[in-house]
Amino acid sequence: MVTRLTQLFLRTLREDPADADVASHRLLVRAGYIRRAAPGIYSWLPLGLKVLGRVEAIVREEMNAIGGQEVHFPALLPREPYEVTNRWTEYGENLFRLKDRRDADYLLAPTHEEMFTLLVKDMYTSYKDLPVYLYQIQTKYRDEARPRAGLLRGREFIMKDSYSFDADDEGLQRAYDAHRGAYLRIFARLGLEVVAVNAVSGAMGGSRSEEFLHPTEVGEDTFVRSAGGYAANVEAVTTVAPASVDASGVPDAHIEDTPDTPTIDTLVAEANAHFPREDRPWTAADTLKNVVIAVTLPTGERRIVVIGLPGDRAVDLKRVEATVGEHLGVTGEVAVEAASEADLAANPGLVKGYIGPGVALDAPVLGTRSRTGLTYLLDPRVVDGTRWITGANQAGRHVFDLTAGRDFAADGVIEASEVRAGDQAPDGSGPLELARGIEMGHIFQLGRKYAEALDLQVLDANGKRVIVTMGSYGIGVSRAVAALAEAYHDEKGLAWPRNVAPFDVHVMATGKGEEIFAAAAQLAADLESAGLDVVYDDRPRTSPGVKFGDAELLGVPTTVVVGRGLVDGVVEVKDRATGESTDVPLAEAVEHLRGVVAGS
Amino acid sequence: MVTRLTQLFLRTLREDPADADVASHRLLVRAGYIRRAAPGIYSWLPLGLKVLGRVEAIVREEMNAIGGQEVHFPALLPREPYEVTNRWTEYGENLFRLKDRRDADYLLAPTHEEMFTLLVKDMYTSYKDLPVYLYQIQTKYRDEARPRAGLLRGREFIMKDSYSFDADDEGLQRAYDAHRGAYLRIFARLGLEVVAVNAVSGAMGGSRSEEFLHPTEVGEDTFVRSAGGYAANVEAVTTVAPASVDASGVPDAHIEDTPDTPTIDTLVAEANAHFPREDRPWTAADTLKNVVIAVTLPTGERRIVVIGLPGDRAVDLKRVEATVGEHLGVTGEVAVEAASEADLAANPGLVKGYIGPGVALDAPVLGTRSRTGLTYLLDPRVVDGTRWITGANQAGRHVFDLTAGRDFAADGVIEASEVRAGDQAPDGSGPLELARGIEMGHIFQLGRKYAEALDLQVLDANGKRVIVTMGSYGIGVSRAVAALAEAYHDEKGLAWPRNVAPFDVHVMATGKGEEIFAAAAQLAADLESAGLDVVYDDRPRTSPGVKFGDAELLGVPTTVVVGRGLVDGVVEVKDRATGESTDVPLAEAVEHLRGVVAGS
Repeated sequence: MVTRLTQLFLRTLREDPADADVASHRLLVRAGYIRRAAPGIYSWLPLGLKVLGRVEAIVREEMNAIGGQEVHFPALLPREPYEVTNRWTEYGENLFRLKDRRDADYLLAPTHEEMFTLLVKDMYTSYKDLPVYLYQIQTKYRDEARPRAGLLRGREFIMKDSYSFDADDEGLQRAYDAHRGAYLRIFARLGLEVVAVNAVSGAMGGSRSEEFLHPTEVGEDTFVRSAGGYAANVEAVTTVAPASVDASGVPDAHIEDTPDTPTIDTLVAEANAHFPREDRPWTAADTLKNVVIAVTLPTGERRIVVIGLPGDRAVDLKRVEATVGEHLGVTGEVAVEAASEADLAANPGLVKGYIGPGVALDAPVLGTRSRTGLTYLLDPRVVDGTRWITGANQAGRHVFDLTAGRDFAADGVIEASEVRAGDQAPDGSGPLELARGIEMGHIFQLGRKYAEALDLQVLDANGKRVIVTMGSYGIGVSRAVAALAEAYHDEKGLAWPRNVAPFDVHVMATGKGEEIFAAAAQLAADLESAGLDVVYDDRPRTSPGVKFGDAELLGVPTTVVVGRGLVDGVVEVKDRATGESTDVPLAEAVEHLRGVVAGS
Repeated sequence: MVTRLTQLFLRTLREDPADADVASHRLLVRAGYIRRAAPGIYSWLPLGLKVLGRVEAIVREEMNAIGGQEVHFPALLPREPYEVTNRWTEYGENLFRLKDRRDADYLLAPTHEEMFTLLVKDMYTSYKDLPVYLYQIQTKYRDEARPRAGLLRGREFIMKDSYSFDADDEGLQRAYDAHRGAYLRIFARLGLEVVAVNAVSGAMGGSRSEEFLHPTEVGEDTFVRSAGGYAANVEAVTTVAPASVDASGVPDAHIEDTPDTPTIDTLVAEANAHFPREDRPWTAADTLKNVVIAVTLPTGERRIVVIGLPGDRAVDLKRVEATVGEHLGVTGEVAVEAASEADLAANPGLVKGYIGPGVALDAPVLGTRSRTGLTYLLDPRVVDGTRWITGANQAGRHVFDLTAGRDFAADGVIEASEVRAGDQAPDGSGPLELARGIEMGHIFQLGRKYAEALDLQVLDANGKRVIVTMGSYGIGVSRAVAALAEAYHDEKGLAWPRNVAPFDVHVMATGKGEEIFAAAAQLAADLESAGLDVVYDDRPRTSPGVKFGDAELLGVPTTVVVGRGLVDGVVEVKDRATGESTDVPLAEAVEHLRGVVAGS
C-alpha cells in the first residue's frame, strides 16, 4: 500500500533540536525518524522504525548465513549470574540496578554472556553438540555517564549480540573468523565503511578482540593506522620503547633551586640556562612529569595513582582507564580522572608542582616500598638508564640527572601517554596516523572465563570433561542507523543508501491541477504494484518548495516529481544523493524506476 | 534452508519442569520453545521465537489494515509523565521502579498511554491531523505479585499496544469499532476462540471497555454469559436488585441470645427453632453477613472496610477490588484481602463473629456517622425494607428483624458478592453461566482522561481548542503463544495450528539405510524449494520411537516419515492433530504436501 504523507504520522521540523550536537541526531529528529524520551533514550517513529527494521534484516540474514540461531533473552535479569562473574560489581555505575517487590536484586542487561553460558550449560553436554552460535537482536541498557549524540551513545539501545561455544581453541578461532567475515559483509551491505582495529577487551575479559570502527569526525573513539596496515584503537596501541641505556657515565642526581618554573617550558629554559647538559640541550622529553590520577573502582572506592611520563607527552585518560585496573588488582570498569585538590591535600607526601619519585632507591617518595604507599606507574619510554629532570618533592626545587633503575623504580609500566601522529606502529609497519571513529561492532575471543565461572563443561571425544571456550560478538544496531545518517547526509537532509532507505521512491505532486494529483497517485500505485516501496506526497495545499524541502530532508534515494512536465507527458526523476535529474516519459516511468532501484 | 535437528539449538525434555502447573508452560519448556530466566521472566529459544514472530506478523498485518502505524517506545521511562497522571503511585507494587546514576526516578513501563499522548501533543496541532492510530509491539514490565503459568502471567512480556486519537466522540467510537474488528480478525487468524465481554476498566480509567477472553479452565479470569447474548467478566456484572419492600408490617428489631451459632447454618437452625418467622422459615438468605476487608491503597496505606451481604453469598475479592477504591475516594490499583486478626484487634468496635450495623440509625456501629468510622458497604440485594438477622455486636447474640433503611443504612452499595450460575443477566437476557478464560486482549475508550492530564489539545474546525479523546487497545502477544499451546495440545505434546506453527512440515528419516537418509534429505530440500518451511530430523542414531516422540512434542502440523515404505516408493504423511496418516508416493509427496499446507 502506498504511504501517503497526508496519512503518515510525521511532522518535519524546521529548527534543529536544542540538544543535538551532531548531524545524525539533528536530522533524524528534524525528519521525524526518532524523538527523545529521556536523556539517551529515544522513541522510534514510523520512518525510523522502518530503517531500523531494514538494518536488522541485513544483520539477521548474515548471522543466519554463518549458522547463527536466533533466540531472545529478557532484558530484566536476576543478579545471581552476574554476581558469580563479579560483573554485578564490575559494571559500577554503568549498570541499571533495581529491586522487585520481594526485594530481590535485578539488573537491566548491558550484555548477556552469563545468560547464554547458563543456557548452553542447561541444554548441552557433549562436544558433539558444539559448535553452536546463538544470537539475539535485543534492547540493551547502560547507564552512560554522558549519553550524547542521539542514537550514537544511548542508555537504551538495540544490539545484535552473539555468542559462540566451542570445545577447543581451533573451534573458537573458526567462530571468530566466521563472525569477522559476517561483520564485514554486514557493514558492506549497509554501505558503512569500517576499519577493523585491534582492541583491548576491557571489562569483557578474554584475549583477542577487534573493533569495527566507522571513521568519522564525530566518533568518540580515536584509532590509529599505519600505511603498512596496522590498525588499533588508541587504548590498544603499545609504545615502541627504546632499549635501556648504559647509565654508568651519568652524573649523580643533584637537587637544584629552580624558582619560577611553573611549566615544563620554563623548567627546560631554566635547566639549559643554569644546569646545561654536556652533550646537547635539555628538551621537554628529558623531564619526567608525574601526574596524579584518581581511579574510581567498580566498588566505588577511590584510589590515587601517580604516573610518570616524559614531559613532552600528555596523559590519555582513556588509555589509562583501559589498563590501570590490572595494576590495582581489580577487574571490571574503572573511571579515571585527574586528581582533585582534595585528593592532593589527602596525600601531603606529594608536593604539588614538584612531585617526583625521590632521589634514592632505598627511600623513595614513589615506587617500590615508597613512603607514600601510592601506586607509581611509568610510561614505557622511561627505560633503565634514562636520565631525567623531575620534581624534588620540595617547593621550588627539581632534581637533575635522576636515572631510571639507578635512582628510582616504579610499581609497573603503563600505556598512559597520548598516542601522536608520527609515533611508530608497534609492528614496525611505519608511522601512525590518527583518526576518529564510531564503534560499530566488537568481536572478542572470550576464551574460558565465563564458562569457568559458571561451570560450563562438555564431555570431549575421550569422555573427559572440558571447559567450553566462548566468543562474544556485538553490533550496535540502533547506532548503525545513526552512523548511516552521519555518513549519508548533506546540508539539506538525509540521503539514505538504497539498502536501508525507508522507501524506494518518493513521488511528489507539484501544482494545483487535479490531473497532476491523479497522475501522481496512479504512478505511485503502479510503482507499488511493480514491487517498489513508495511514499507519495499527496498534500493538496503544500507548496512545491516545502515538498522539495521535505523530500530532501527525509532522504529517500529517488524522487519523482509529477508537475508541469505532465503536459508534455514527462515526469522528473531526481537522485537524492547526486542531485541529478532526468525527464522520463510518464509511460516509461515504472520501467525506468525499476531499473534505478535495481541499480541497473 | 532446511532446518536440521542435528544443528538446531534444541534439547527436548522427558520430565516436566518442577514449577510448571499448566500444560502450555510444561510443553513449551519440554519442547524447547522457552526457558525460565527468573520468576515470570522467560527466554525465547529458536522454535519459540519463530512462533512468536508468526503471531506478531498476524497482529501487525491486521493493525496496518485498519490504518495503524507502527512506532516503538522505550521500555525505560522517566517518572515525570506518570507522575502527572498519578500512575507512578497508582500502580503500587506492580510497577518496577529504579533510579539512574544521577538519582533520577525511572520505571519499566507496563503500558504507554502517557508517552503516546505526549508524542501526539508534540507532533500534532489540528483536528485535520486526526484520527491517528499508533501501535507498537514491545516488551512490557509488571511486577506481578504471583507470576504463574509460564507465559500466561509473566513479569516481562510482549504486548501489542495501540492508541487512537480523535477530535470527537464519534471518531473515538469509529476507532474503537475498527480495533474491535481487527482484534476479532487477529484471533480468528490465530485460531484462538475468544469471547468479547464487558469489562470494568480498572486503573486505566475511561468508559467503555471490553475484554477478549479465551475460554479455558486454566484461565485466571472468570466471566459470565447468558443464552441471550450477555457476556461480561465477573468484575463487571451488575446485580439485578429486588425492588424495595414496604417494611411497615415488620416487627421492631429485637436482640436475642443465640448460643452455639458459629455458622450461618447453625444460626438459621437456631432462628427457626426459637424465633420462627411468621410467613415462612428463615433461610441463609435472610441473614446479613458482615465481612471485614483490608484494602491496601496504591500509597501502601491499609484501610478497613466492612461489607454486608446476604448470608447465602460469599464475597468475591476480585469484584471488591474492582470498585472498592471508588468508595474510598482513591484511583489506581488497590489490593484486597480478608482482614487479619491484627486488623480486628485494632478495631475493638467490631465483635468478631457477631458483627452488625447496630440497631438504630442514630447510633450505628456501622454505616452513616457510625461510631467505628469504618466504611460500610452493602450488597445491592439489601434494599430498603428488607428484614435481616445479623450480629448484635455482642458475643453470643444476634439481632432479628433488623430492617434496611429503617434500622440501618450504609455508606454505599458495592458489587461484592460472588456471581453464581443461574443469577439473572442484568440486561434481562436470562440466567448466567460461568466460565473461565485467559484475557487475550482489552480495548478501552479512555476518553479525555490522559489528554486532559497531559494537555493534549487540537484546534477544531472553528479554530477552537478541544481536548483530544483517546482509546487504548492491547493484545498479549507472548501470552497468545501460551494460549495457543493451551488450546492446541494433547497428552503427547503440542499441535500448532498452521498459521502459527514453527514449520510447515516435519520430515523424519527412520531406519538405518543411507538411501533412507538420502531420500529424506532430498525430500526436505524439495519441499523448501517449493516454498514450505521444513524441519528435518536427520539424527543418524536416534530410534524411530524417540523421533516420533519428539515430532509429537514439537507439534509441527504435518509429519512425513521416510522409512520402510521407501522400498515401495511411498512415504507416510501424518497429521499431528488428528493422528491420521496416509501413504503417499514419494514422487507425488511435494505436490501432496503443498496441498496439505495450503489447506486444500
